[in-house]
Amino acid sequence: MADWPKSIHIHEEGPREGFQFEKGQISTDSKVELIDALSQTGLQEIQVVSFVNPKRVPGMADADQVVEKFTKKPGVKYSGLWLNEQGLQRAIATNKIDVKGRMVLCASEPFLNRNQNSSLEQMVQGVRNMIGVYKQNGIAIEEGGVQAAFGCNFKGEVPVEDVLMIVHRIMSIAAENEIKLRNLVLADTMAWATPRKIRSVVGAVRERYPDLNITLHLHDTRGMGIANAYAGLEMGVHQFDSSVAGLGGCPFAAHKGAAGNVCTEDLVFMCEEMGIDTGVDLDKLIEAANLAEQIVGHPLPGSVKQGGSLQALREKARAGASTATA
Amino acid sequence: MADWPKSIHIHEEGPREGFQFEKGQISTDSKVELIDALSQTGLQEIQVVSFVNPKRVPGMADADQVVEKFTKKPGVKYSGLWLNEQGLQRAIATNKIDVKGRMVLCASEPFLNRNQNSSLEQMVQGVRNMIGVYKQNGIAIEEGGVQAAFGCNFKGEVPVEDVLMIVHRIMSIAAENEIKLRNLVLADTMAWATPRKIRSVVGAVRERYPDLNITLHLHDTRGMGIANAYAGLEMGVHQFDSSVAGLGGCPFAAHKGAAGNVCTEDLVFMCEEMGIDTGVDLDKLIEAANLAEQIVGHPLPGSVKQGGSLQALREKARAGASTATA
Repeated sequence: MADWPKSIHIHEEGPREGFQFEKGQISTDSKVELIDALSQTGLQEIQVVSFVNPKRVPGMADADQVVEKFTKKPGVKYSGLWLNEQGLQRAIATNKIDVKGRMVLCASEPFLNRNQNSSLEQMVQGVRNMIGVYKQNGIAIEEGGVQAAFGCNFKGEVPVEDVLMIVHRIMSIAAENEIKLRNLVLADTMAWATPRKIRSVVGAVRERYPDLNITLHLHDTRGMGIANAYAGLEMGVHQFDSSVAGLGGCPFAAHKGAAGNVCTEDLVFMCEEMGIDTGVDLDKLIEAANLAEQIVGHPLPGSVKQGGSLQALREKARAGASTATA
Repeated sequence: MADWPKSIHIHEEGPREGFQFEKGQISTDSKVELIDALSQTGLQEIQVVSFVNPKRVPGMADADQVVEKFTKKPGVKYSGLWLNEQGLQRAIATNKIDVKGRMVLCASEPFLNRNQNSSLEQMVQGVRNMIGVYKQNGIAIEEGGVQAAFGCNFKGEVPVEDVLMIVHRIMSIAAENEIKLRNLVLADTMAWATPRKIRSVVGAVRERYPDLNITLHLHDTRGMGIANAYAGLEMGVHQFDSSVAGLGGCPFAAHKGAAGNVCTEDLVFMCEEMGIDTGVDLDKLIEAANLAEQIVGHPLPGSVKQGGSLQALREKARAGASTATA
């Protein structure tokens, strides 16, 4: 029988994933409007921007202004993404982003070459440098991450052993630096996962590192996102990255339909309907998804914003039944 | 551990589901072109038309011409849909449709009222009448079906007990008529199912009727289709209805985003990637999905036709690796 968690924690990445990827110019105010709307949905953690090179990612050129303008809601964490020390320093300088120390490696060196123009050893060196910066700034490092953990457009299959090797590498660097990681993000960066692969990779990592929380970061390019999330839930995974309305996608992954992360409102719908608490008000989240669609000016992939939640239908059906029997 | 089947049987319903639902006029030749393309993909069973009242479903007014014009491929079965004796007689008269006897009831009377302007007792009477017609024509009756088996926009929740009662009703009528049903289609007509509901309904029916094959007919209006199919696979379900490119939807279900059945190529992708044989050539099926999109003239919901299969990427990665090591 399935070992579903009672509740899940969602790390909403729509603003960062989405606005980084969108081709058209999106105003700073629109970005802020979406972040502020998401803050009202019950989401506990929202990734608002990435601090990256504006030449490579023009959609994030206004990251600092976005951070300045959005309204922090008490109880909500606001995260950011950075790939190097410069980005981290920008995040710290905002004085508003909840800066979490992270150690991310990649299970596919060919992808690393294309995506970050880097080798694995360079990436390891980058991680070591970042640890120094985190420590200097008194920032706790509790999260590891593995990119391309389920397959790669450039490497092909990524064997479970390769993932374990990368996790081992992360854990060794952590141990050397007296860091105790609590969470590990397994990212299906290029949407190669199916539920079977989720089971095998999550199962293998869990067996080797039973104390580590696992977060799934699932791209939905091939429509497997929700099924993969479900396979994760069955294994007790209770932390997910997701994007409102399915915003986003990886600009460097060279696939045609660069669909974003698994859609937040679809994930919330599935969980709440299965009795798994998300803390999110689905109807408010659907409003935010509609806002996201309005902002980008084209249809976004999420389904529940189209199909609607079931709550109103349930109430209408109950009202109809009581009228009928009255 | 999951009890996945080794192979699945897909009943492709795209032509029927899709062209019934599409608002624009679609030429008979285009419908035939899609059916003929699907015949070349390895699919074993294709539902080509519905024999329904052209006043209610104008998109099916040319059903007889479509049937006349498509090319039968040996080994492929071509099914049709009918809701009454008149439709059945039309199907028989084609001399080309593989006419299967079916006994379908609905687990939600409110839906029945809206969708077919009928009560449950009228529907039962209809089934009894149809049994007579099947028998007169020497047509085997091997399939039962339950509409709205997972929830209903008009009734709200559909308790498992109600589904079991309807299945019992079907089995009783079958027994009275010395009919041995082999297959039961559980339809998520209005997309209320989540994997949890799939487990509970399939589990309850399986427990009561262990000899009955179960087919899942899953609508994808809320993005749960593939996850629900996966939940079915985990319970050993090996028969699925699906629609190429996600064509279709129920024209009477009164939901905004009337998404069609679960998408065939996404289902095939998931199964093949998990080592479950579908008999289908995914690349050919993606071509057919692109053709479907071209025919209807607007984007269709399937993901894999956008994201692409992994085979070409795997081969390219292998070629790259052998060049690198040469």
